[in-house]
Amino acid sequence: MNDTAVTRIIADFVRAYPAGGLPEAVRHEAHRTFLNWLGCAVGGSRDETVDIALAALLPFSGAPEAHVLGRRERCDALHAALLNGIASHVFDFDDTHLRTVIHPAGPVASALLAFAEHCPTTGSAFIDALALGIEVECRIGNAVFPEHYDIGWHITATAGVFGAAAAVGRLLDLDTERMSWALGLAATQPVGLREMFGTMTKSFHPGRAAQNGMTAALLAARGYTSSIAAIEAKRGWANILSTGRRYAEITDNLGGDWQILSNTYKPFACGIVIHPAIDGCLQLRQRDLDPGAIERVSLKVHPLVLELTGKRDPQTGLEGKFSVFHCAAAALIEGDAGVKQFTERCVRDPAIVSLRNRVEAEIDPSLDSDAARVEIRMRDRAEHRVAIEHAIGSLARPMTDAQLEAKFRGLSSDILGVERCESLIRQAWHLGDTDDAARIARDAVPA
Amino acid sequence: MNDTAVTRIIADFVRAYPAGGLPEAVRHEAHRTFLNWLGCAVGGSRDETVDIALAALLPFSGAPEAHVLGRRERCDALHAALLNGIASHVFDFDDTHLRTVIHPAGPVASALLAFAEHCPTTGSAFIDALALGIEVECRIGNAVFPEHYDIGWHITATAGVFGAAAAVGRLLDLDTERMSWALGLAATQPVGLREMFGTMTKSFHPGRAAQNGMTAALLAARGYTSSIAAIEAKRGWANILSTGRRYAEITDNLGGDWQILSNTYKPFACGIVIHPAIDGCLQLRQRDLDPGAIERVSLKVHPLVLELTGKRDPQTGLEGKFSVFHCAAAALIEGDAGVKQFTERCVRDPAIVSLRNRVEAEIDPSLDSDAARVEIRMRDRAEHRVAIEHAIGSLARPMTDAQLEAKFRGLSSDILGVERCESLIRQAWHLGDTDDAARIARDAVPA
Repeated sequence: MNDTAVTRIIADFVRAYPAGGLPEAVRHEAHRTFLNWLGCAVGGSRDETVDIALAALLPFSGAPEAHVLGRRERCDALHAALLNGIASHVFDFDDTHLRTVIHPAGPVASALLAFAEHCPTTGSAFIDALALGIEVECRIGNAVFPEHYDIGWHITATAGVFGAAAAVGRLLDLDTERMSWALGLAATQPVGLREMFGTMTKSFHPGRAAQNGMTAALLAARGYTSSIAAIEAKRGWANILSTGRRYAEITDNLGGDWQILSNTYKPFACGIVIHPAIDGCLQLRQRDLDPGAIERVSLKVHPLVLELTGKRDPQTGLEGKFSVFHCAAAALIEGDAGVKQFTERCVRDPAIVSLRNRVEAEIDPSLDSDAARVEIRMRDRAEHRVAIEHAIGSLARPMTDAQLEAKFRGLSSDILGVERCESLIRQAWHLGDTDDAARIARDAVPA
Repeated sequence: MNDTAVTRIIADFVRAYPAGGLPEAVRHEAHRTFLNWLGCAVGGSRDETVDIALAALLPFSGAPEAHVLGRRERCDALHAALLNGIASHVFDFDDTHLRTVIHPAGPVASALLAFAEHCPTTGSAFIDALALGIEVECRIGNAVFPEHYDIGWHITATAGVFGAAAAVGRLLDLDTERMSWALGLAATQPVGLREMFGTMTKSFHPGRAAQNGMTAALLAARGYTSSIAAIEAKRGWANILSTGRRYAEITDNLGGDWQILSNTYKPFACGIVIHPAIDGCLQLRQRDLDPGAIERVSLKVHPLVLELTGKRDPQTGLEGKFSVFHCAAAALIEGDAGVKQFTERCVRDPAIVSLRNRVEAEIDPSLDSDAARVEIRMRDRAEHRVAIEHAIGSLARPMTDAQLEAKFRGLSSDILGVERCESLIRQAWHLGDTDDAARIARDAVPA
């Protein structure tokens, strides 16, 4: 039992945090998080997962006030939150709060941008709400991770719905009681069983969390009552959905440490365990070696790599994500492991198939999960080696702003064209200064 | 562990059940269930819970194709499922599957009628889908009750979403794989923590279950993939949301016994534990005794009655539901314990307050939960006694069709007028024969 008013404390924190008061590092990270999310949502927008959801749900959409990013369709803001949330997750390329494996932006940013299209919102209020929503989401995640995830809940959505509710509730200027109700209405709509992984329903989770969170805030704003102790009550969210609960993770040092500062971004469009090996291959490629002249690629990797991604002969783009051999070969030949390297075209490319048959991988239990060793032996007996201690994208070696921009271009320029893509990058970095946060949504569609 | 393909079996049953093949008793009970649900939804439609939900969500509604029962507003079918589901539960007056305490119609009928307004549906297909949806809902409930409820889940909505998905999936003519996906999309959206009881969010649960279930079926129909083993998988619904699981309750004797045959209907708008005492008071009232001449009312009741409804001096309509003393007095004076007896007007009525102060209640542990004894002593020393062995509305003494009609009139005639009310009763009994199931929705609003 715990008699701390956890829900009230976090609700009051979100409500009362001073406008424009975020520390500069937090503010900057919120912009990075947003840029990364926007690229993922635009990049994912042409996936059939989004096509199908649109076909099923557009007939029920309200006024076309909000944009489906990367596409020509528009819809009401609640559906936009769902659809953009789905799109942002289809490539598994979105941000990661490593401690909880939450992908924080999907639920929160999807709800916020859609809401900003419904109701005029300044960039400054938007960035505040984004950071505060992610704070709520990740702190609630911290309180129940790993038990909640181990039971089988997809924590991105089950914690994300709180973040979306808090963020939209902040923009709606809810008082503490109504903010608590919004969190209650969020708590009672937990989306996401891990059983759905490997199906389109996985991407449904962050989208529905965004939509449910926005719904919760809208209802609470009008006076729809709910529990004011939904997180910590005896029959509340944490007791029902987790076997472990550490409420101090939610309430301690609020405003002092910020979860968004430990948000990370993936440079490669596949599981994080293969990133060190890909990083090593890309670094060696910069030495101008000729892929055709490679005799053998030898990888030393963390034990999880072969357990999760040991597929020798992938045949589909999706299978390519589960093959460290394909990832190494594609990185060496094409110089990237982005969305284009996980397509049927790439996994069946004869040059890549040929090189991947010359990739060996060996477990080295002494390696950390973000480390790898890569050794390349050329036909002429020359050898190239690199040791990766912390892969790019890890907390110790975060992607730079320029690398995030490059990732954004890779995801969106084919869809939006170079000009819009560059304009969006500029807008995203200055989002906190604009009078109209929704403009970026209007510009994130084909001309 | 269990290797039975539970989800596939129930999906296939719903898909393959012969059109128009329901046993006559099942078909008739489906009509009774529908009539009862319709009255509750119309009767609840003026509650502020519905006002607030409408105010919050109508701005996001799509084309006004579906009716908010009992009101002038219209909205898209997904929102209608939500709003009518909320309205049908606000009085706690809806049907009860006693074994699981599921209120079956809320999620299933709310989804079906809204869907029928979106897509032409015959009455026969509607009645089949209603019975099949309730079958899925209550069997899944049987498999996890009481553990799932004891943990804290509001089983009406957590099981109801499967019923709504199955019922709409049936109307969409899904094949077994897509029906399984629909159940998967339902499983991953479980609404309803019991912590919300006592707030407006309780009524949100069956409404959201209806809306989520319809969404699940619509997505699956377009090919949105999901797990095909969502109920029984290792990280599926039953393992994550319950500590007990008896899958045979879902798969055994499908089409042989029908859960809807054990559906019950409340004659009184309060908790079922007080029903035997109210029943006794109403029976004695029929002896034409003068309430003003009563000296003392002595009740003998099941122990739960005083534990749950022992409030001596209620001040609000809601508090009246938790006072067996008020219920007895109101039944004796006004001849009913309907919605009107749980208003501030009634609980503060001087004659009722005076009589309630002369009601005594005593526990008798030998009584079953649907039994009571009522003894009335008049000022002239005359005594009247009745022994209720099975209260009206119990499985052993179900409400008659005529009593269900009277309940419907009590709930809807003030809102719709007598003429519409009588027309709806006729339409409801013949729902299975109509070409256009949606007509009843169009007529269930003020003229």
